[in-house]
Amino acid sequence: MKNIVDLNCDMGEGFGQWVLGEAPDEEIMAIISSANVATGFHAGDPNSMDRVVKLAQTHGVGLGAHPGYRDLQGFGRRYIKTSSEELVNDIVYQIGALREFGRRYGVSLQHVKPHGALYMEAAANEELSELLVDTLDKTCSNAIIFCMSVSKTYEVAKRNGHPVAREFYADRDYDNSGSIVFSRQVTRPKPADLAAKCVRACKEGFVTTVDGSDIEIEFESICFHSDTPGALEIGKAIRKGLTDAGITIAPAGTVLGL
Amino acid sequence: MKNIVDLNCDMGEGFGQWVLGEAPDEEIMAIISSANVATGFHAGDPNSMDRVVKLAQTHGVGLGAHPGYRDLQGFGRRYIKTSSEELVNDIVYQIGALREFGRRYGVSLQHVKPHGALYMEAAANEELSELLVDTLDKTCSNAIIFCMSVSKTYEVAKRNGHPVAREFYADRDYDNSGSIVFSRQVTRPKPADLAAKCVRACKEGFVTTVDGSDIEIEFESICFHSDTPGALEIGKAIRKGLTDAGITIAPAGTVLGL
Amino acid sequence: MKNIVDLNCDMGEGFGQWVLGEAPDEEIMAIISSANVATGFHAGDPNSMDRVVKLAQTHGVGLGAHPGYRDLQGFGRRYIKTSSEELVNDIVYQIGALREFGRRYGVSLQHVKPHGALYMEAAANEELSELLVDTLDKTCSNAIIFCMSVSKTYEVAKRNGHPVAREFYADRDYDNSGSIVFSRQVTRPKPADLAAKCVRACKEGFVTTVDGSDIEIEFESICFHSDTPGALEIGKAIRKGLTDAGITIAPAGTVLGL
Amino acid sequence: MKNIVDLNCDMGEGFGQWVLGEAPDEEIMAIISSANVATGFHAGDPNSMDRVVKLAQTHGVGLGAHPGYRDLQGFGRRYIKTSSEELVNDIVYQIGALREFGRRYGVSLQHVKPHGALYMEAAANEELSELLVDTLDKTCSNAIIFCMSVSKTYEVAKRNGHPVAREFYADRDYDNSGSIVFSRQVTRPKPADLAAKCVRACKEGFVTTVDGSDIEIEFESICFHSDTPGALEIGKAIRKGLTDAGITIAPAGTVLGL
Repeated sequence: MKNIVDLNCDMGEGFGQWVLGEAPDEEIMAIISSANVATGFHAGDPNSMDRVVKLAQTHGVGLGAHPGYRDLQGFGRRYIKTSSEELVNDIVYQIGALREFGRRYGVSLQHVKPHGALYMEAAANEELSELLVDTLDKTCSNAIIFCMSVSKTYEVAKRNGHPVAREFYADRDYDNSGSIVFSRQVTRPKPADLAAKCVRACKEGFVTTVDGSDIEIEFESICFHSDTPGALEIGKAIRKGLTDAGITIAPAGTVLGL
Repeated sequence: MKNIVDLNCDMGEGFGQWVLGEAPDEEIMAIISSANVATGFHAGDPNSMDRVVKLAQTHGVGLGAHPGYRDLQGFGRRYIKTSSEELVNDIVYQIGALREFGRRYGVSLQHVKPHGALYMEAAANEELSELLVDTLDKTCSNAIIFCMSVSKTYEVAKRNGHPVAREFYADRDYDNSGSIVFSRQVTRPKPADLAAKCVRACKEGFVTTVDGSDIEIEFESICFHSDTPGALEIGKAIRKGLTDAGITIAPAGTVLGL
Repeated sequence: MKNIVDLNCDMGEGFGQWVLGEAPDEEIMAIISSANVATGFHAGDPNSMDRVVKLAQTHGVGLGAHPGYRDLQGFGRRYIKTSSEELVNDIVYQIGALREFGRRYGVSLQHVKPHGALYMEAAANEELSELLVDTLDKTCSNAIIFCMSVSKTYEVAKRNGHPVAREFYADRDYDNSGSIVFSRQVTRPKPADLAAKCVRACKEGFVTTVDGSDIEIEFESICFHSDTPGALEIGKAIRKGLTDAGITIAPAGTVLGL
Repeated sequence: MKNIVDLNCDMGEGFGQWVLGEAPDEEIMAIISSANVATGFHAGDPNSMDRVVKLAQTHGVGLGAHPGYRDLQGFGRRYIKTSSEELVNDIVYQIGALREFGRRYGVSLQHVKPHGALYMEAAANEELSELLVDTLDKTCSNAIIFCMSVSKTYEVAKRNGHPVAREFYADRDYDNSGSIVFSRQVTRPKPADLAAKCVRACKEGFVTTVDGSDIEIEFESICFHSDTPGALEIGKAIRKGLTDAGITIAPAGTVLGL
């Protein structure tokens, strides 16, 4: 069914001298086509951003901002009740910070992907998605919004003609609504299983949910997480599985034909 | 001697619900020609930045980034020993964040003015000034660097042909080297005295130092601080003094003929 | 009806060089009987805590910890979704920090009052209130918990025999359930009106709600906020009103007979 | 020469979901006699403190506060120029926070060891050491101060009769002054070499410096770092080396006879 897809991963999600995940950023960067770079609020700092953006440039990987709630301790995984205006200001701030490092290395912003609880909040909150899309239309109108297929974010972006990419989560489970089951505890999955899940989703357009049903799934980008145990092997297995199945891996901008 | 000069002030130096200084931002913005907007590390947050950038746009005031050390508790007034690379990464991050709000309101970045201890460190540290100027040449080559006349920052910017504006401090004292005497405790000065000091500096090119000597002073921009007690009255007095003396107040870009 | 009551106020709610409210801490401290000292997560820093605890000692004011969500930008007024275990760990941390300054000046901890959204969350969340009371029983069993009369916190503390003081809010409105109407925007109220409201609540046990009904209200402590416009005049008016009505103002520990 | 010594290690130096070092806290805790628990400013958060203090209680390990500069991004390894009063307020705050978790588990505070740049600053700054010792005398007079043998901290503590333990650094190099050579880059050392270095220091009282000289060294506690590569193996090798040499490992309080 699908012969081209993006492969994205969160990058630079350490802080100061702390790192996240087992695999070096360099090795992950070599196998993906889009990088979601942590922008300082849930993780990441100016030094990691500088380093990761430079890596993205070296590897020709699509550069994305990965803004989160201002919550280092909670890693942006805790919902914070506040206004859509405040959240979009937070996002504007973080996008701008990342773009400046992009400018330093001659890389333009390809996409924006809110992180963790902010991603889930935007998916559920139409007002927030509206304000985010309106704002991006003003500040970076060609930056692709990454979101779930089943989300207000997708609906709003489509309705407004803003470029948007739906994600398929290689290392997260789905419920029957098509939403991912958000979980902190991630056990070490088998790379081959995740690769097969991705290939099937690309070829057949289906994924099996937590209760065993098959649901249709639409997407332009596949996501795996750099802090999932065995992330590098997972990414390599997905890459090989897709390539062996004749599916090209390319940055989201290319997939969307932008 | 001088018939045109910039008048700059630090703006948006609160955080969350805390505000700094007595005067509303709106009233200060109405009397200045350049605003140094706090960018979140020593003060300022995405909400204040959004608000202040919008005000700058409304009033036609030159927009400047005011990046500081990452030190909210110390308000960026405490020296932190670290590498020039880390500091310039911090500055790149903060400049980018501000530019994005500028983009939201159609205002481009006019200048960059490091804050507090970072301003003083750049003034003394040639390596830091070099790296800062080199980086700005790549990321925002027409952004004017604000600095003291007596500083490595000025020397380096001049040598590299990067646009630079020297500041005269209306509400700070000078020592005989031409450096300002950096002090946290600021008593309530007489607006008329500061206005006279500014007019004399513009017309005659001299300022009286803390030990009573007169030294020559060169500058393109006059600075006063929004947290100096009586800031609004001081700004108004300076504005009136300059105008009465036939001196035009205009954004630094205009003063420099950019 | 009531001839003795505590008068409490939040103190030290600045951060770094930012201050909150118009009145100097010294003057507020001179008119209250219990101080809720900000402990660094929503406001307050080690320097403000040192200063305020010393003031409490000087004025014989009951010392209370005022822990909040870890959210400086939101001033602890934004709900953060997280586990009760994490929140109680946050509270333990902040209480301990304050007690150490108390130890420095020979003042023991009289009470604990969660701040803002955390206060409201504990009021509504029985699990959190249970864990908080259990923990305080181990770490500071004689520290009085401050809460609303209508709250899970009060129910749980009473049930467990933990010392507890119910608050009456001089400068907040009530709804018919007896809960305060939490609001960021506070207009400048008339001190005499608030004083009369307090005296009536003490003498008659009633308060008028936002829709004009009278409801019964029970409390051992009256609270006003140092950032309410005109806070010092409000505090003085309440103090005078109560005293003129023959009601003694004393620390919560004295009111409870501990 | 020495038949009893303390073995200490920094613990809980992650933040939020970030961890530091390869070895689980549980395994390090099982082989040491004193734990320096990060208290939130350079690393550590209320959740890690709760967990580590409980572990210390389980293993009968001496509990120590490990306060640092307020600098998460720099991990407390960057000098910050500020007053001794501010620094001691920071330390009081952090000690108090830790003691409260100790109280929760029935463990009293054994010692205080400033972290990183703050440790080095106290070593060099007599005023800071004086104020720290004076303050501890008031707030926790029996808490042992950990410091280098060659330091103002040691001189001041001795002079004031405050309990003090000198440290020997298993995994740091010494210069001829007896000061450690502070370095961020730590290569993977051979556990047997470090164990031999410790046994020699205990038996003979000498250590070889970076330029090959032997200097006398006095200490009551041996320190290794949980983020040194191979930390667990290093700790085990030191433990075995000391035990095989007939040297008892015990908490600093026991070593000092307190």
